[in-house]
Order: sequence, then structure tokens, then C-alpha cells
Amino acid sequence: MPHIPEKAAELRAIPLPMGAIVPSDSIVEKISAALKSHRLRLLVGDILVLKHKIVSKAEGRVVALGDVKASPAARRWAKAHDLDPRVSHLALAEARRIVRQRNGVLITETRHGWICANSGVDVSNVDGGKSAVLLPADADRSAANIRRGLKKKFRIGIPVIISDSFGRPWREGLTDVAIGVAGMSVFRDYRGRRDGFGYSLRVSLEAVADELAGVAGLVCGKLTGVPACIIRGFIFAEGRGSAKDLIRPAARDLFR
Amino acid sequence: MPHIPEKAAELRAIPLPMGAIVPSDSIVEKISAALKSHRLRLLVGDILVLKHKIVSKAEGRVVALGDVKASPAARRWAKAHDLDPRVSHLALAEARRIVRQRNGVLITETRHGWICANSGVDVSNVDGGKSAVLLPADADRSAANIRRGLKKKFRIGIPVIISDSFGRPWREGLTDVAIGVAGMSVFRDYRGRRDGFGYSLRVSLEAVADELAGVAGLVCGKLTGVPACIIRGFIFAEGRGSAKDLIRPAARDLFR
Repeated sequence: MPHIPEKAAELRAIPLPMGAIVPSDSIVEKISAALKSHRLRLLVGDILVLKHKIVSKAEGRVVALGDVKASPAARRWAKAHDLDPRVSHLALAEARRIVRQRNGVLITETRHGWICANSGVDVSNVDGGKSAVLLPADADRSAANIRRGLKKKFRIGIPVIISDSFGRPWREGLTDVAIGVAGMSVFRDYRGRRDGFGYSLRVSLEAVADELAGVAGLVCGKLTGVPACIIRGFIFAEGRGSAKDLIRPAARDLFR
Repeated sequence: MPHIPEKAAELRAIPLPMGAIVPSDSIVEKISAALKSHRLRLLVGDILVLKHKIVSKAEGRVVALGDVKASPAARRWAKAHDLDPRVSHLALAEARRIVRQRNGVLITETRHGWICANSGVDVSNVDGGKSAVLLPADADRSAANIRRGLKKKFRIGIPVIISDSFGRPWREGLTDVAIGVAGMSVFRDYRGRRDGFGYSLRVSLEAVADELAGVAGLVCGKLTGVPACIIRGFIFAEGRGSAKDLIRPAARDLFR
């Protein structure tokens, strides 16, 4: 069972500005350079959270909209709701299943299994509307690669989380959640644990990877140009976690 | 429009251990004593996040299960799924509407409008199973009262957030979200803002109050006995925010 801290500790989230990135860049080299220029050092116990967009850009998951020929379905949908048909086309192409498509809102299940708006296809913070960014092909693998690269370079194995801003049912607004994880369990597991009164906890999995992604949402924002932060002081459960662990299986989801 | 930071800053979350609380306690006095004993001072720009349970306890929202006579419906449901019928009774009594009731999982819309499991009724971290804690009757008002009390005492008006752990569709695990807010907007509003490339952001409301609640989830956990934390370094938008702003109106919710 993952380790649970019995003592609360201060948590710090340190922004890591990184500058622009292009597909030929090594993201590990970019992170290293950013750490150096901001006089930051990775420490044992740190967690690195990266907004997915910088990872997608480094991996070439950028599509020039001028090269996209929208399908008739994408054109109809976009026309009815004043959207860019090429972006709608990409969103539909990245979808495994359409969950809802109503009032101009397209919620899909992506190829990866994420349920989100427009399959995570986004035009902001790219190049002013000429290109769209897709989600990383496999953000767990991206996180593992970055973790491995940092370990090789700094001799320190820290968890890496890749985040995106998703909407959710019932509640307004977006929050950053984890779509790629390496080097830690995505949960804090309270199963079988007893509280200070000896009462055994029933509801028992805390999605800490999502809460850590939310910290990056707070610290990085969308207009600062800061795509990453270092979280220090959170006692995580080591393990071979995967962001896929956060996907509720259809059989257990009362809302499918 | 709320102010958006153009520069990312370090965020700190400092746990505030507080010890047990009983209905005759003043929560503001308890917070003051905790600050003093941990040599902490509230600063301008700080945000105080409290787990709802300590607020509920201070407000007497605790029910002795021995006094509860479960309804036939609660008894049937509890029996079929090996639950405590008195807790099920309270959960049903606190519900305005049953959203889903299947496989032993009861999702309701509470009197306040929250959609969550068991109407937020919880037996952990109370007294070992003899009593249940209900959500505060009006957590926005609770937050406003605490904010006012702290202002009077320390001459400093800081935002107060009250959180609870909620599940959500599609994703596994619980995260802490805001159920009461005073002194800040619950959103960071990007509407009409342009990114560094001049592209106007479409998806535009970040639910920062939920992300801040999640920080308390990370820092406080469920077994440390720490019911609060101070968040320092987050540039919030001042305003008369309400956690109710986070409730998606039925007409805008594709999942009702």
C-alpha cells in the first residue's frame, strides 16, 4: 500500500519559465537550461509538473490548420456554431467516441480514453491561430521519457506529471488534471486505514495527481508563458503509476 | 474583469494544525490559537482553506447516529449494500434530488446544490462511528463569518475557502473542491484575453477555488488531523465570489 504521510508538511510550487520550444528541441535540455538560468536545483522528493502543450510541441504534435481539409461532418458542426471547421475536424479525428455534441460543445472520449472538450485540440498559446496542438500521443510515455532523461542528467529520479485543463460535469470552470504520469502512484490510498478515532475509512482513493496538476494550473496560468513548475514537500507514494489509472472504467462509471 | 497575474510566482501552502473542536468553540479563536502556537502570521494576499468538517463541527452539524430512526427506503438501500441505514437515512434527508442510486453508490444533489456521494454525510474523522457530520448549512456564509472574524481580530481581510472531497464522473478518485468561499472570485477569468501570440482565448474560466481546495487536500490529507492550510503567493481576483458560482446551471449542463 502506498505510503501515507502522518504529518502534514509545507508544500511549495516553484514556477519554471522555459521559453519557446520547437520540435527539434530536447525537452530535457530545455528543462535543464531553465533550471540553470533560474538557479534552481531538483531535489529528492520534488515533482515536476509540465503543461501538456510544451510536451506536445516538443513531440511535433502540432498541425498547421492550412493543411487540414475538414470533413463534411466537421464543416456542418462548425458552421452551425461559428467554429473553425478545421479545428472541429481535428477534434473529431482524435476522438474514439462522441460523448456529447450539443449547443456548440463537443465532448469526446479521445483515443487515449480521456473525456474532454474537443479531444483536447487547442489553438491558444501556439502561434496565433495558424496551428493547433494535439494531446501527446502517449503522455505517460512522454512523462517516463522526461523522467528518464532527468535521471540520467541529474542522477535523481523524480516523478513527472503532464497536465491539461479539462472541464467537468456539474461544476463550472476548468481545472488542470493529470494526463501523463511517471514515477509515482496517481492516488493516495486510504483503503483499510483508520482515522484518529479508529474508524476505518470507506472512501479511500484521493486523486493526488489531479490535485498536483491543479497546483500547476494555479502557478502557471495561461498567460504567463510558464509551462512547468516544481512541487516540493508533497510526500508521494512511489510506484509505477499511470495517468490511465485515473480513467474510470465504463463498468464502474454511473454516468455512461 | 478579475486581475490576472502576468508573472508566475511561487506558491506556498502551510499546514495549520488545530486540534479537536466542539460546537461551543469559536472557530476564529481556534484559528488564532493555532496561528500563535505555530508562530504563523496571516499576511495580505494569504488564502485560508479549511476542510469542511471542522466548520461543520463548530457549527454543530453533527448527528448522533443513535438518535436517527432510518426510513424504510434508507433501510432497504442500506441492507442491499451492507451500509449503515442511519447514515443512508441522513444522506437521503440531506438530498434535494437523487442523481444516481446504483451498485451501492448514492449520488445526490444536496439542498445546497452540490452533486456528490451521500449528500456529503460522512462518519470518518468524527468520533469513531458514533456520529455523522453533515455539510455546513451554508458554507459561503460560514466562510464569510470566518473571514469577518479574522478581519476583526487581525485587521486583515483574507479570502476563506471551505473544502470537501468529492468524486466526479469519468475519473477515479476524489479531489478536494470548494463548497464555501468568501473574499475572492472562484474563477480566474480569461474571457477576451489574448495569449502571447495575440490569439483570443475561447475557453476562459479556470476554477481556481477548486484548485486551491485541492492544495488543501494535498497538504492536509485525511489522517494528519490537520484541518486547514494557509496558501501564500496565489494572486487571486478580489470580489464577492460564492462557491455557488461553481454549480453549473442545469440548462448549461450536458450531463443532466
